[in-house]
Order: sequence, then structure tokens, then C-alpha cells
Amino acid sequence: MIVRDLGPSDVEDVREALVTCGAFTAEEVRVALEMVDAGLNGDYLLPAVEIDGRVRAYACLGKAGLTQGSWYLYWICVHRGYQGRGAGRVLQQNIEQIVRTARGDRLVVETSGRPDYDRSRRFYSAAGYTVAGTVPGFYKAGDDLVIYYKVVG
Amino acid sequence: MIVRDLGPSDVEDVREALVTCGAFTAEEVRVALEMVDAGLNGDYLLPAVEIDGRVRAYACLGKAGLTQGSWYLYWICVHRGYQGRGAGRVLQQNIEQIVRTARGDRLVVETSGRPDYDRSRRFYSAAGYTVAGTVPGFYKAGDDLVIYYKVVG
Repeated sequence: MIVRDLGPSDVEDVREALVTCGAFTAEEVRVALEMVDAGLNGDYLLPAVEIDGRVRAYACLGKAGLTQGSWYLYWICVHRGYQGRGAGRVLQQNIEQIVRTARGDRLVVETSGRPDYDRSRRFYSAAGYTVAGTVPGFYKAGDDLVIYYKVVG
Repeated sequence: MIVRDLGPSDVEDVREALVTCGAFTAEEVRVALEMVDAGLNGDYLLPAVEIDGRVRAYACLGKAGLTQGSWYLYWICVHRGYQGRGAGRVLQQNIEQIVRTARGDRLVVETSGRPDYDRSRRFYSAAGYTVAGTVPGFYKAGDDLVIYYKVVG
């Protein structure tokens, strides 16, 4: 398991991870890939986990504007076939290190309250994130926004 | 009091409103004006209140990506010399009408938990917003993010 930055040649691996991980709609995959493009152009940081020569997990994060040290974790995704091997945990540790190195002190994550996002929410809880709040029906009727944060500084 | 869209010739009035309203740092004024520019190019909606021929209040709002009907109210500002005349209330009513017309159903606002933002938070509470949650220390140590939402659909 190698942690490194995502490069232009990894985009197809990222697409496969996003599609197979099962958490994202086609529209969400499209937006995630747009943000990978923007990240490759310097707008976001894109740490990735390589397993056997292919990228099987990645994250997209960026500094929150007008804050002294808050970062948004916009996307984090582990390929379905490579879940349960600790890639998410390794990536999360790397993300926290990135934020600390940039003199940041906290991470904010927005996710869905839908039952099929249970696994994602359990991941954040296990990684030490706290629920900051909920916006009922944010994504659509019955699909709440749940905001998490973690102090890492 | 006339409610209309902001135009390119109103930018200096907006700058004056942002500076005098007392809520924003120089950096925040800079970002707000960048978003006015982006709004004039179609990225955001910019309803404004004109009093005696000059813009004395404005707001900046936009649809939240990946949601069915949620809108972010990014900025709302009333010139210091024109506060207490109902301009904020008129603007808020117009904002809600904009969201409903676009088949949106809720507004989300992010603001600061600092004591000098008391007036802003009281405005949102009086306008019917509910606190969704708080991210402690989001802006900087001792300066929390407070997230409000209001169902308008």
C-alpha cells in the first residue's frame, strides 16, 4: 500500500473506484471527477492509495476560505474490491498529516444521512469525527446533510 | 425601497455597504466583491434593495450543487446608515421568493458565532431560520461556524 499524490494517469482508476464504491450517483461521480481535474490543476489536494500498481482509494481536500486553519474533505472513496484492508484509515491518517503540515487544525466533512451512507458515517465516527449538525432534507426530501468535524492540530 | 437585481454600476454602492455594515473584515469584503463579480457573470443571484437611487442592501445566493432544492445564502448586507428600516426583511422575503420560483425549498446560511455577529444571528432567528449545528473554532480559535437553515418551499 503506497500513499502518494494522484496524477493525470490515475483518472481512470479513480473513476472505477468512484463507480464501484457504491456510495455515489452518476451525477456525484461526474462532480467528483470534475474536482479531480481541478485538483490536478492545483485547486485541491488529491492524496491516493496505490495497491499493486493501481490507485484504489483517493481523497480530495482543500482549505476552507476565510478560515485560519479549517479544511474541507470533499471526497474520500475506496474501491469496493479493496474495502476492509485499511486503505481508508491510511488515507485518513495521510489527510490529517497534510492538514497539520499546512498548519491547519481541523477537518470538516459533509455527507448524507441516508441509510445507504451508514458505512460512510461509521467510518467518520471511527476516525474520530464529531457530528456538528444536520440540515434536514438538504439533498432532497428524506436525504439530510450531516456535517462532521475533527480537530487534528 | 425598490427591490431589483444588482448591476455592474452598483459595485461601489455594494462596497460601501459591505465596509460600513461593520460585520466584515477587509478579506471578507474582498471575497464578497469577488462573488459579486462572479454573480454579475451569472454564477450567483444578486438581489438588491435601492433606497433614494442607491443600492443600500444586497444579497448573494446560489443553488447548492448535488441537491434537489437547497440554496446557499452566501452574503446578505445592509449599509450601516440604512439598518433598522426593514431593508433586510424585504431582501429576505425576496430571496425566499427567488428560491420558490426556482422550485427550491430551503435556504442554508453559514455565519460566525462571535459576539459581534449577534445582530446577524438575531436577524436569521427572527427571519425563521433554525440552527442546524456548530463547528467550534472553524474560522479561527474562538470563532465558531454556525449553520442555519430555513424551509421555504
